[in-house]
Amino acid sequence: MHTKDQILELDRTDTFAHKRKEFLIPEDVIYLDGNSLGPSTKAARASVTKALNEEWQTDLIASWNKHHWIDLPKKTADKIAKLIGAKGTSVTCCDSISVNLFKLINAALSLSDNRKVVVSEENNFPTDLYITQGIQSLIGKHRCELKTVTKNRIMSSLNHEVAVLLLTHVDFRTGEMLDMQRITEQAHKNGTLVIWDLAHSAGAVPLQLDRWKVDFAVGCGYKYLNGGPGSPAFVYVNEQHLENVEQPLSGWMGHKSPFDFRAQYQPAESIDKFLCGTPPILSLAALNGALDVFQNVRMKNVREKSEALKQCFLTTLKNSADIPSDLKLVTPANPLQQGSQLSFTHEYAYELSQALIEQKVIVDFRAPNIVRFGFTPLYLSFDNVHQAATTLSDILVNKTFLAERFKTRSKVT
Amino acid sequence: MHTKDQILELDRTDTFAHKRKEFLIPEDVIYLDGNSLGPSTKAARASVTKALNEEWQTDLIASWNKHHWIDLPKKTADKIAKLIGAKGTSVTCCDSISVNLFKLINAALSLSDNRKVVVSEENNFPTDLYITQGIQSLIGKHRCELKTVTKNRIMSSLNHEVAVLLLTHVDFRTGEMLDMQRITEQAHKNGTLVIWDLAHSAGAVPLQLDRWKVDFAVGCGYKYLNGGPGSPAFVYVNEQHLENVEQPLSGWMGHKSPFDFRAQYQPAESIDKFLCGTPPILSLAALNGALDVFQNVRMKNVREKSEALKQCFLTTLKNSADIPSDLKLVTPANPLQQGSQLSFTHEYAYELSQALIEQKVIVDFRAPNIVRFGFTPLYLSFDNVHQAATTLSDILVNKTFLAERFKTRSKVT
Repeated sequence: MHTKDQILELDRTDTFAHKRKEFLIPEDVIYLDGNSLGPSTKAARASVTKALNEEWQTDLIASWNKHHWIDLPKKTADKIAKLIGAKGTSVTCCDSISVNLFKLINAALSLSDNRKVVVSEENNFPTDLYITQGIQSLIGKHRCELKTVTKNRIMSSLNHEVAVLLLTHVDFRTGEMLDMQRITEQAHKNGTLVIWDLAHSAGAVPLQLDRWKVDFAVGCGYKYLNGGPGSPAFVYVNEQHLENVEQPLSGWMGHKSPFDFRAQYQPAESIDKFLCGTPPILSLAALNGALDVFQNVRMKNVREKSEALKQCFLTTLKNSADIPSDLKLVTPANPLQQGSQLSFTHEYAYELSQALIEQKVIVDFRAPNIVRFGFTPLYLSFDNVHQAATTLSDILVNKTFLAERFKTRSKVT
Repeated sequence: MHTKDQILELDRTDTFAHKRKEFLIPEDVIYLDGNSLGPSTKAARASVTKALNEEWQTDLIASWNKHHWIDLPKKTADKIAKLIGAKGTSVTCCDSISVNLFKLINAALSLSDNRKVVVSEENNFPTDLYITQGIQSLIGKHRCELKTVTKNRIMSSLNHEVAVLLLTHVDFRTGEMLDMQRITEQAHKNGTLVIWDLAHSAGAVPLQLDRWKVDFAVGCGYKYLNGGPGSPAFVYVNEQHLENVEQPLSGWMGHKSPFDFRAQYQPAESIDKFLCGTPPILSLAALNGALDVFQNVRMKNVREKSEALKQCFLTTLKNSADIPSDLKLVTPANPLQQGSQLSFTHEYAYELSQALIEQKVIVDFRAPNIVRFGFTPLYLSFDNVHQAATTLSDILVNKTFLAERFKTRSKVT
């Protein structure tokens, strides 16, 4: 459907076209892996360089106040809040998703008298399950019991024992997106609190956490927010819970007055109570800088372009000659059920991903047989996506090539 | 005692004199606050710059393997292990001290059948107490009960109920250093495990964790190790505990095979089981770089110069005319009981610290009335320390000046 002229016209009228120059991506690379690690930006690089040279090197310890390092978790969180439909007072930025899930699951359980079950989805990102298993072992199955179900059993699994529903909004393998608003509403009718993992949604799809009455959420700084490898994560706590809720990782940064150095922990009254230790300033500076790319960006428009990019990719693929039928889209066909990623299964998925990467189309492989393509509207053009689909189809028509590679690898490993 | 000539001679024969040029400290600054935030180094800056430009920007997601990001916690920990008398297999580098204490206290309690008491010192750094209080609230006083005692009651507090002794090696306020070997030995005789907080000792004083049979330890990356603001912390687990111990922050990086994405947590068999979420690479790169400054440095020699610097400071101060008697050393006079810091109380301690900082002698204030001076042999000269003491005595002889400032501040606040 998309002729070369149509592709060029799509790029010419792309309102995000100017954004590409804010990113630092090698010229010859088509980067479809921003769902795994967002690329660097001029703003992130400048922010880290400033933190290194003007701040740490020059002003040393005084930087905690002079350069407001102490406020950096909050300042960064304020920018994230705008992207996820939250008040700034409900978000902070710290630690990893894993550590923050530990805080939130315990926080949610502490609000759920006499309920102990945490329901999650069996294909949830493993750390979400692992952290819940860790809590179960620590506080006992009589206070925390993980039950995992298939996606289509989530709602029917809710009963009077279910304290917490712990779900990832967009599936990391398949790219399937759940209906956050509807599920949250249903869970509340059952008296169940919901924790959403936004790893593959923040910065990718429009979110309205406050309006949808989400209870708790965590999200990732280093995927669609481009905060750099292992960037700090964020925590969202609905304002209705903020006053009553406690979390067990009561480190000094979560204290009401950390620099009074008192012997008794007293949590901050604000979202700061979800902080724990000293924040990693250099990594946080990268994220804080990277978020400036989203200034004046409406997530609604990001979503629109993301849908158009995915459509361009699928159409190009469909129109290419002789695509073997063994490349199967496992992302739901309905765009409303898609995040900003398309996932395909293939018999030689690993070899396929490697062949794409060799041709500078960066994607990733997830065991056992998935290739993931991430669509990130601020730095991908329609031409990029068209080329990527063409490269993919060129590789696929030569199935023998992939099969040979598969045989070679199988011998080695 | 120290004439100007003697000071110059000390600097001339200083075997660490060449190290100063590896640090990035403003020329006019005498930095006596490396016990709070170590300064930047050329190596740390180069490491972060490389991670930003050659790695993240250029190789994007491939950097996890190509630039060994995935091994960075271990690689960094190997360098730290050499400084603390530990095998590399007993140390990893991750999260904050606060988060790591949560892991270790739970780990130690899980090894202590039928014992529940955690003894700590009432003036311990607050986060150590706060985290224990958080665990107590979470798992109940029947499984974790914090008891705080004065320093001189530590040994007499040990009884058959005490599971864990949680101590900081060098007191953050007073700079007093405890006898780690003797206390660990005594605790073991009582069947008590010991967790040492090395925030003010790693990179400052010689440590022999393996030889002293220390059970567990945490330490700070951003003080004497110069890893940058909020740098990741480290964890030490004695090899005798490694096989049997578990920790509750079971994030995906601690899994035996994280990239198999299995639904059931299975801890790594190595020290990696103490990892949790994705490591903050930029902050970790700074620490990994900074540690290269310690290559070929023997901690024994660091200690010797540290003692000489402190002696030079105290002698200069003593020889200065008319020091009012209200400046009181609260660090024990016996060097064996000192870390690498000297702390003084003064009626106008805050004003005193500010006056020093204005004259580019960077120290810090700890409420209610302490001024801390950190001695860091790799970048401080004897002349630096002599000048700092002279500046201090010049300020002190003009007590009216400080009193006036105190009055002004008291009116404002």
